[in-house]
Amino acid sequence: MGGTPVPDVADLELISVDDHVVEPPHVWQERLPAAMRERGPKIVRKPERGIEFWVYEDRKYATIGLNAVAGRPKEEYNYEPTRYDQMRSGCYDPKARVEDMDVDGVTASLNFPSFARFCGQTFLESDDRDLALACVRAYNDWMIEEWCATAPARFIPLTIAPLWDPALMAAEVERTAALGSRAVAFSEEPSKLGLPSLHSEHWDPFFAACEETSTVVCTHIGSSSNMPTTSPDAPMQVGVLLTPANAFYTATDLVFSPIFRRFPDLRWALSEGGIGWVPYFLERLERTADRHGAWLEIPSDPSPREIFDRNIWVCFIDDEVGLEQRHKIGVDKIMWECDYPHADSNWPHSGEYVRELTAGIPEAEVRAMCSGNARALFGFDA
Amino acid sequence: MGGTPVPDVADLELISVDDHVVEPPHVWQERLPAAMRERGPKIVRKPERGIEFWVYEDRKYATIGLNAVAGRPKEEYNYEPTRYDQMRSGCYDPKARVEDMDVDGVTASLNFPSFARFCGQTFLESDDRDLALACVRAYNDWMIEEWCATAPARFIPLTIAPLWDPALMAAEVERTAALGSRAVAFSEEPSKLGLPSLHSEHWDPFFAACEETSTVVCTHIGSSSNMPTTSPDAPMQVGVLLTPANAFYTATDLVFSPIFRRFPDLRWALSEGGIGWVPYFLERLERTADRHGAWLEIPSDPSPREIFDRNIWVCFIDDEVGLEQRHKIGVDKIMWECDYPHADSNWPHSGEYVRELTAGIPEAEVRAMCSGNARALFGFDA
Repeated sequence: MGGTPVPDVADLELISVDDHVVEPPHVWQERLPAAMRERGPKIVRKPERGIEFWVYEDRKYATIGLNAVAGRPKEEYNYEPTRYDQMRSGCYDPKARVEDMDVDGVTASLNFPSFARFCGQTFLESDDRDLALACVRAYNDWMIEEWCATAPARFIPLTIAPLWDPALMAAEVERTAALGSRAVAFSEEPSKLGLPSLHSEHWDPFFAACEETSTVVCTHIGSSSNMPTTSPDAPMQVGVLLTPANAFYTATDLVFSPIFRRFPDLRWALSEGGIGWVPYFLERLERTADRHGAWLEIPSDPSPREIFDRNIWVCFIDDEVGLEQRHKIGVDKIMWECDYPHADSNWPHSGEYVRELTAGIPEAEVRAMCSGNARALFGFDA
Repeated sequence: MGGTPVPDVADLELISVDDHVVEPPHVWQERLPAAMRERGPKIVRKPERGIEFWVYEDRKYATIGLNAVAGRPKEEYNYEPTRYDQMRSGCYDPKARVEDMDVDGVTASLNFPSFARFCGQTFLESDDRDLALACVRAYNDWMIEEWCATAPARFIPLTIAPLWDPALMAAEVERTAALGSRAVAFSEEPSKLGLPSLHSEHWDPFFAACEETSTVVCTHIGSSSNMPTTSPDAPMQVGVLLTPANAFYTATDLVFSPIFRRFPDLRWALSEGGIGWVPYFLERLERTADRHGAWLEIPSDPSPREIFDRNIWVCFIDDEVGLEQRHKIGVDKIMWECDYPHADSNWPHSGEYVRELTAGIPEAEVRAMCSGNARALFGFDA
């Protein structure tokens, strides 16, 4: 990152396309129909054991704030804050979040769920589909009417969908788009959730609704309920390092899937996937199409590379290799993310960090990657 | 690759660290003890069906020449030549191979098995361990005494080992090293073969023998008997593009495993893994150690990065992104491979191809990557 003078931090607009909310205890207890509240998600406190956990239907969910460690020294990172009072209130309180964004120099933020999981997998596992659908809607209403409405110029609404039924998903995309949602979380590999893959036509009603409403599909790493690793006894650092492999795999599925041939205007963001793998991915993409296109009958109009350029966006937190090679990716396809409040975030120093990381990159390119591309993709002009 | 003038092709020495033999029918029938030949691997011909296949114990192995398509037009690539006469004789005849290497401008070649599979997994699946051990030894003797002895200055001996017993593996490494072997094939992820992982101490006798005899461990992509893909219905091009992910995963295992802490002089080559992923891997490696080293207790002396620099080698066929970023990898860690006779090979134009691919790279670096590093790593001064 060298000794290049660092341009003004305060002057750089940052829009984060990947942050996380920890759902506060009232989300479902206030919003579900009264008859459903007993079996809907609620927080149970066991002060004598120092823990709080969600109970939903008959299941306990111990991790209320997965890796919500913002503000701690590195030595105190872990995967499981076990009580709300072990987290910054910016995790679950939108007013406090705005203050934490101000400290960090972040203008606007798009947030994924925690208890509901990255694309709402928790509700896919429900026994009671009616309850699950009500839970999805309650989360979305809370996200739009409470979280984002607290500061509409500061939050980009991202919703979830009832994964078990593409027609219901389409209806929820249409309902929430009318309420202001700009994006919907989906699974990076639905086959890992026991659902049809990205190569099937099963999801067409959902994708059609997204295309029609200009709702961006966002697939966060881990939204397959799987994180990459090697062997059962591999240490945790193996999985930490390999994390972006999930996005590499999803990108490969997407460029070879029929999705964007059927929905050419659909837009897809790979969330928390990093960008350093993208130049090599694109090289292999072109080589695979060139060398193996004939016998594998890979469609060529549009080519897989044209699909990437037209339909897929990527993002970075700290990615020197990827930023150096940004022109191989396309500067207009790269967005910035903060990842608040997880351990990979640079909060409360994101502004300084991004300025150092992008030192030497022309200012117009930095501004496009840090905010302009996100504003354009999400149609966010608040 | 631009319009840079291409230096003389004939003047560039090429040593390929990853090619493939198709075992000829006589390997085991001539070399196994007489009493074992009936159940040992033999070729069965069904001319009326146009096929030949291996029979070993009671099992049939249909693919005699996996993807051995050298010399065919791209439209005729496929995974399964079904008869020897559908392949170039350079696949199974060492004299013909030398001629094919001459045409291609290749000085020397290291070869992996086909029927035996990349690290001898076929014999791991045997019912009869005595027979399996004899088969491993017969393959190794054939590789050293026939294949390599045909032209000792043109072939680097790579052997296989009896994967089910690390003490036997050590003995076979010692036996074959005494016969001239320079390298041994091993599994990129033995846990996928039902064996202990790269994080266990199970393999110590094997690694100790490799270190003591300066035998290089070579793990070929697919030597876990698994190739990367996403979902069951993903088209084959998904797996083709993702192939290098296996090497990315193995490298991650290796830098965090205790292997090189216990065997600091052990040397390991990732075969057919490509290099374009390595700069990002190394960036993530340093970031993982820096950000998560404290709570995950990642050892720091040597650091994971120092282990990569000291103990691990990588190779390329066609890798523009990786070659551009070669200084992030270390020019001395990169070797060239031909991949004859598989579809990714540029045979018979390897020389011209490499010259175009490396245009603009200083000649000393090109020579190190194309032959010097391989000579040094494998102690190959023939």
